[in-house]
Amino acid sequence: MAKWVYLFKEGDASMKNLLGGKGANLAEMTKLGLPIPQGFIVTTDACTDYYAKGNEVTDEVKEQIFAALAELEKEQGKVFGDNENPLLVSIRSGARASMPGMMDTVLNLGLTDVAVEGFAARTGNPRFAYDSYRRFIQMFADVVMEVSKEKFDVVFDGIKEAKGVEFDTDLSADDLKEIVKGFKEVYKREIGQDFPQDPREQLIASVTAVFRSWDNPRAIYYRRMNDIPGSWGTAVNVQAMVFGNMGDTSGTGVAFTRNPSTGENLMYGEYLINAQGEDVVAGIRTPHPISMMEQELPEAYDDFIRIADQLEKHYKDMQDMEFTVEDKKLYILQTRSGKRTAPAALRIACELVDDGMITKEEAIARMDAKSLDQLLHPGFDTKLLAAATPIDSALPASPGAAAGRVYFTAKTAKAAADKGDRVILVRLETSPEDIEGMHASEGILTARGGMTSHAAVVARGMGVACVSGCESVTINEAEGYFTIAGQKVNEGEYISLDGSAGNVYLGDIPTVEAVISGEFDRIMRWADEIRTLKVRTNADTPEDAANAIKFGAEGIGLTRTEHMFFEPDRIPKIRKMILSKTAEAREAALEELIPFQKEDFKGIYEVMEGRPVTIRFLDPPLHEFVPTADADIEALAKDMGLTFDEVKATCDSLHEFNPMMGHRGCRLAVTYPEIARMQTRAVMEAAIEVKQEKGFNIVPEIMIPLVGEKRELDYVKAAVIETAEKVIAEKNYKIDYQVGTMIEIPRACLLANEIAQSADFFSFGTNDLTQMTFGFSRDDAGKFLESYYENKIFESDPFARLDQEGVGQLVKMAAEKGRAEKPGLKLGICGEHGGDPSTVEFCHNIGLDYVSCSPFRVPIARLAAAQAVLNNK
Amino acid sequence: MAKWVYLFKEGDASMKNLLGGKGANLAEMTKLGLPIPQGFIVTTDACTDYYAKGNEVTDEVKEQIFAALAELEKEQGKVFGDNENPLLVSIRSGARASMPGMMDTVLNLGLTDVAVEGFAARTGNPRFAYDSYRRFIQMFADVVMEVSKEKFDVVFDGIKEAKGVEFDTDLSADDLKEIVKGFKEVYKREIGQDFPQDPREQLIASVTAVFRSWDNPRAIYYRRMNDIPGSWGTAVNVQAMVFGNMGDTSGTGVAFTRNPSTGENLMYGEYLINAQGEDVVAGIRTPHPISMMEQELPEAYDDFIRIADQLEKHYKDMQDMEFTVEDKKLYILQTRSGKRTAPAALRIACELVDDGMITKEEAIARMDAKSLDQLLHPGFDTKLLAAATPIDSALPASPGAAAGRVYFTAKTAKAAADKGDRVILVRLETSPEDIEGMHASEGILTARGGMTSHAAVVARGMGVACVSGCESVTINEAEGYFTIAGQKVNEGEYISLDGSAGNVYLGDIPTVEAVISGEFDRIMRWADEIRTLKVRTNADTPEDAANAIKFGAEGIGLTRTEHMFFEPDRIPKIRKMILSKTAEAREAALEELIPFQKEDFKGIYEVMEGRPVTIRFLDPPLHEFVPTADADIEALAKDMGLTFDEVKATCDSLHEFNPMMGHRGCRLAVTYPEIARMQTRAVMEAAIEVKQEKGFNIVPEIMIPLVGEKRELDYVKAAVIETAEKVIAEKNYKIDYQVGTMIEIPRACLLANEIAQSADFFSFGTNDLTQMTFGFSRDDAGKFLESYYENKIFESDPFARLDQEGVGQLVKMAAEKGRAEKPGLKLGICGEHGGDPSTVEFCHNIGLDYVSCSPFRVPIARLAAAQAVLNNK
Repeated sequence: MAKWVYLFKEGDASMKNLLGGKGANLAEMTKLGLPIPQGFIVTTDACTDYYAKGNEVTDEVKEQIFAALAELEKEQGKVFGDNENPLLVSIRSGARASMPGMMDTVLNLGLTDVAVEGFAARTGNPRFAYDSYRRFIQMFADVVMEVSKEKFDVVFDGIKEAKGVEFDTDLSADDLKEIVKGFKEVYKREIGQDFPQDPREQLIASVTAVFRSWDNPRAIYYRRMNDIPGSWGTAVNVQAMVFGNMGDTSGTGVAFTRNPSTGENLMYGEYLINAQGEDVVAGIRTPHPISMMEQELPEAYDDFIRIADQLEKHYKDMQDMEFTVEDKKLYILQTRSGKRTAPAALRIACELVDDGMITKEEAIARMDAKSLDQLLHPGFDTKLLAAATPIDSALPASPGAAAGRVYFTAKTAKAAADKGDRVILVRLETSPEDIEGMHASEGILTARGGMTSHAAVVARGMGVACVSGCESVTINEAEGYFTIAGQKVNEGEYISLDGSAGNVYLGDIPTVEAVISGEFDRIMRWADEIRTLKVRTNADTPEDAANAIKFGAEGIGLTRTEHMFFEPDRIPKIRKMILSKTAEAREAALEELIPFQKEDFKGIYEVMEGRPVTIRFLDPPLHEFVPTADADIEALAKDMGLTFDEVKATCDSLHEFNPMMGHRGCRLAVTYPEIARMQTRAVMEAAIEVKQEKGFNIVPEIMIPLVGEKRELDYVKAAVIETAEKVIAEKNYKIDYQVGTMIEIPRACLLANEIAQSADFFSFGTNDLTQMTFGFSRDDAGKFLESYYENKIFESDPFARLDQEGVGQLVKMAAEKGRAEKPGLKLGICGEHGGDPSTVEFCHNIGLDYVSCSPFRVPIARLAAAQAVLNNK
Repeated sequence: MAKWVYLFKEGDASMKNLLGGKGANLAEMTKLGLPIPQGFIVTTDACTDYYAKGNEVTDEVKEQIFAALAELEKEQGKVFGDNENPLLVSIRSGARASMPGMMDTVLNLGLTDVAVEGFAARTGNPRFAYDSYRRFIQMFADVVMEVSKEKFDVVFDGIKEAKGVEFDTDLSADDLKEIVKGFKEVYKREIGQDFPQDPREQLIASVTAVFRSWDNPRAIYYRRMNDIPGSWGTAVNVQAMVFGNMGDTSGTGVAFTRNPSTGENLMYGEYLINAQGEDVVAGIRTPHPISMMEQELPEAYDDFIRIADQLEKHYKDMQDMEFTVEDKKLYILQTRSGKRTAPAALRIACELVDDGMITKEEAIARMDAKSLDQLLHPGFDTKLLAAATPIDSALPASPGAAAGRVYFTAKTAKAAADKGDRVILVRLETSPEDIEGMHASEGILTARGGMTSHAAVVARGMGVACVSGCESVTINEAEGYFTIAGQKVNEGEYISLDGSAGNVYLGDIPTVEAVISGEFDRIMRWADEIRTLKVRTNADTPEDAANAIKFGAEGIGLTRTEHMFFEPDRIPKIRKMILSKTAEAREAALEELIPFQKEDFKGIYEVMEGRPVTIRFLDPPLHEFVPTADADIEALAKDMGLTFDEVKATCDSLHEFNPMMGHRGCRLAVTYPEIARMQTRAVMEAAIEVKQEKGFNIVPEIMIPLVGEKRELDYVKAAVIETAEKVIAEKNYKIDYQVGTMIEIPRACLLANEIAQSADFFSFGTNDLTQMTFGFSRDDAGKFLESYYENKIFESDPFARLDQEGVGQLVKMAAEKGRAEKPGLKLGICGEHGGDPSTVEFCHNIGLDYVSCSPFRVPIARLAAAQAVLNNK
């Protein structure tokens, strides 16, 4: 028979997976001899068993719960439901990973019409007993039976009014008895049954409710945001109640052993005299700083300081503790490693290492890689933010806080920014034409598109805040306003965006610039010492590249050359190329682009100073470069000396039903090899010139996108090599170069052995690979993915966190087949996943050489790569 | 050292792969002691070696050619380039599979200024010698040096005019000498070098030209149409010349041992006295029927009849022979199994079996499965077709011939058909709304879309001829005309379509109905005895289903339920469902659809009489059901009691960037499980009622499309099972049913083991799987696939013939993973590939249980399935 229930004294800290974090720590503290109200833990296994059995707690589990309860009764000298000395317990969730506030809690369980009398007699305080009972009924109804709290508040307020009483504390024991009676009536009316008078029934119902709360929507959301698998389940902690609300020698509080905002090594916390935990949370009374306890509850304070110190040393980390003082006696209800801001995490880690408490490796292993994002982007002034309520929230597409005046086109946004305004660009979606306006903006808000939409990817690259896929947004450009969640905002009015949380606010919330501390550099250096995976960046401009180097990038894994074509002086030339009727005319048009493209590459090579640079050849479908509005077509026709109809016909002919799977990537180079030739010439001339002028050792890495077949790569590669050799001969200057491919089509993974024969390197384009492997268009999937999360079909966004089972299977297969064919084959990843910690670990595990991510995610990747090494030790 | 060259006497018929079909048969006939002009074969290996070496014939190959040439000289008693008795040879291609007319031939090779004199002396006929020389120069220049024939014709006609001569035969030897001189001048002017006077140089250049011609565009196209791999290469046959143009006791001809059109067992052929092979082909003189040879060349005729009979018995198949009579002596130049029409193939096969010459298995193995298509569809009256030239040609999307009046909308087409007109529907592309008009048409022509576009798939299912992706078509609906290849055709004018060849003709070409012979049934029965793979059909209506049963379908592998929603009485209801704001409103709208859907299913069940029926739940994105024109939106709004803006907003919100990868398939059922419930109810009620009313044993197979994750299937399946059980309880009638899934997303293949746990069957949807695996949108790929064929990146259309290396790898993986998890898992394929013979063989080989294809392809699949068994013996 499986063991589903553990007494605190039967466990220890190592049993976190089975007992949950809270339970394991309560067991550990029991072992340390600390003052812990005793109790038992229903395991996480019991939770998964509950789900496996179709949401049923089995009799076996129930029996073990009752057996543990009997032990607890014996130990406490109290009896469940007793009319003289009843045992009361609290029921708290406790998963393997801490999920504060996500699941449910029930206090004072065990009170019944009989037990409340016993409790009154025992405490000598009927008012307190009935107050506890009415609280319990309301909480049980809310948490376990899902009856809204307001239904009870009506009764409560009614009786208060009838009694002419202003404060709750003015209610007498008899008033409270009447309230209990009213509450039980509400309960019966709502549920159709009497409030349960068997405390065992209460207990099982509450345990079941905690199990059920593992799958409430906010818990599902929290898990998705924090990469916590749904399969873990939660444990349930059943613990004897202690009461902080038994008078002025009682109290309750929470404290951190160090400051969780700054990391300063000073006890930080607060407490309330004569209160239960929920009162601290509810915020009705203002708690006192923990230091005041020294006067008010001196013995308990001394005990607490001693125990806090002991626990921090024991766990070797900053602790977050909850405690209750019952009639001067201190009880510890919980300890855990405290949540902290990123700056605090850095400071604490460094100081613990400096104090010799932990090693550098332990410090690195503990850091939350994702949180580093906070360090590099501006944030809102937290005090001012507290007063604001988001008008809506959507996808946190690019981190950082921003506030500015609303504009609806890249052009007007740019113009306003040029005048010195801070600007927020609000659009249905963005497209490559908007680049300049996006760059000029503080933040971007889009109505459509997911975490890897154009807006999201570009904004992250630029470090501009972005909230995407905000479906309540409708834009009326003509009349100069937009609406969000039903509210109208005019052009030029202020809104504020929190791109890290996905929140949108009306008005102008001041932001605070990010400050990078010396501790950041120390931690990053430790990470670099540990990691073996290289970290490159995705950068399309010298500015982005310089930024990424500042963050520690060791090369560029992806330069998207098409972004270079949208500048006002270039787009006419690319359009001319598209409108050409013959290969010769196309070549002539392309010829004019070479100087521009060459300058782009030279700028990047100069910044990179010889670090590797992977340049991806033209990828998007050509329709992205042509105008859609009749007026623009007219203008273009005039420019080109063509008729409107001719230009319109060409633009129309570029229309595709599914452009993502259309004429793009290397397919463009197959139909128009002259494009690949032009780009090769620009790459090679730039490399040779920078090498000659600056002496950097440049080995261009030319990347052919969207390959699905070896012969396809061979065909394009032949054009590349022919041109490259021609340039080398013309310049009479020998230079090495590589031609590789982006692996982003499922077929390329399946036939990676063949493709490897023709490739100097593979770079996994996991954005497209995810799209094709799932059959999800990243621009459309937002419409249904929410349903997938809600129904627990997916636990995470496959565009943000690599789907290791499916897409990852293909990546691994391709890596293995590629290396089997060509043992030294260089392998990297340049999809948006390259900055996701779990994906970085996956890449390390399957032996990739590098990950490449947007500049602001480089530190995350460096840290995650180091953690991957440590996780594998 | 590899052996690159074989004398005829060194080979035999078994060496077809190495020597090519022609070479192997020449060797075999040599072995049989037949009168064959001797020669040698440069192997197919030499051809692949030529390509591997970057289009170079190596010295080793050349040496072996010259060695074989020396042998040939010895045997013939003639010397290459000799001034007394020169050896002349023909150079002919000969691949493993016969590709008539696809590659190049050079005759009379060996003539030089010196040799022509020797040849004149030896034959005593200077006129003949110089005539042969001028023909050789022109042919060599054309085939080997790629100088256009017209350049020579100018000289030839000039001299004829100067001499005042009307017929070629009136030119004297001196005239021809002058022409030779003129031809050599043209040659020098065009090539920049003298006409080669070394016959060895001529020989090597010609062999090289034949190798090169393996990759000419028409050969590439032919291979693609006939599933011939480019890697096979062609052999080159070098054969001593014999001359059918040496006077009235000479001649040349071609003959079939049986009639290739009808299969009748009567020698069928024609010949020309005093002519070379090219004259027969050129069609300037009218050849005589072979029977006349009995009078004109009696000895040769007797020999030929005897040999023809011997060869047919030897090869046990109808032979297609070329022969030449040189001064009364018969030479056989070639024999091969003759190409034949499908009716002839059936008749010949049956008669050969009846005569005991071959077994049923041999008869089956030999049939060209694809050709069966011809049997089931009307064709053009061949005599009338001969006079017509296609105005344009595009994709042969659905076989059969059709002629009718042009209409541009489904509505006008239907109206015209109702009046009794034959109609051709011409559209940019078709959509599900067009179904009725498509059904009413004889044929469909579309400007866009590939072999698996909507038009193509639906037309094949209906047996309606279709030519798709005809890019020269522009439609002006408003003014009532369209243009094709620059020609204008008004509404109501006639055009004709050959859906088997992809040709479009102006005017009304009469068609001939298909007649299915008794031989067809015999052959099909033999195939059924042999095959193990079951054959189902894709059918959406009782009519299609009945048709498919007639063709031998054993069940339905795919019923697309969405096709049922486009009828005029139903589309308002589905639109109402789409416009519903709540699940309740949606359910109410769906409720109204149940009776319709149930009737559909009952109709199909009744026709199928208990055979298995797989019903796929709603698949297309919802935007396909809503109107796009403002007027239609207005009307819908009025119908629904909504404002125009409300309806328009909903329609707009359904827009997707890449609908193929959007909100469709089971994703609809995840967001709107009520749709799956409605469909389940209709399926189950229909099955129970038909079972009760007719007694057929019906086990509905419910198929959930587009699944990529087990939990996704589980979620939808739960709704299905809940409803199915409810119906069973309501009707109080027990019935079995299965819930399976369509495997069409790469991720489903990768995780097939997990998905199999929840699926009663897998049906591979290879259309979508091909799209996702290649990252090709089938509606857009037409734009670039041509370049892929031209550049030899692809050899076949992956939407027509399953890509076994890539997509097939996934199918095989999924089959293996699925069966590993669930050994009895039923596996089928229901993509368009199910009717492609090579794919059928693949499905047999990897152990699928059945293929499902459009009704008209069922016979092809039955035959191909039998051939798969035989190929594996």
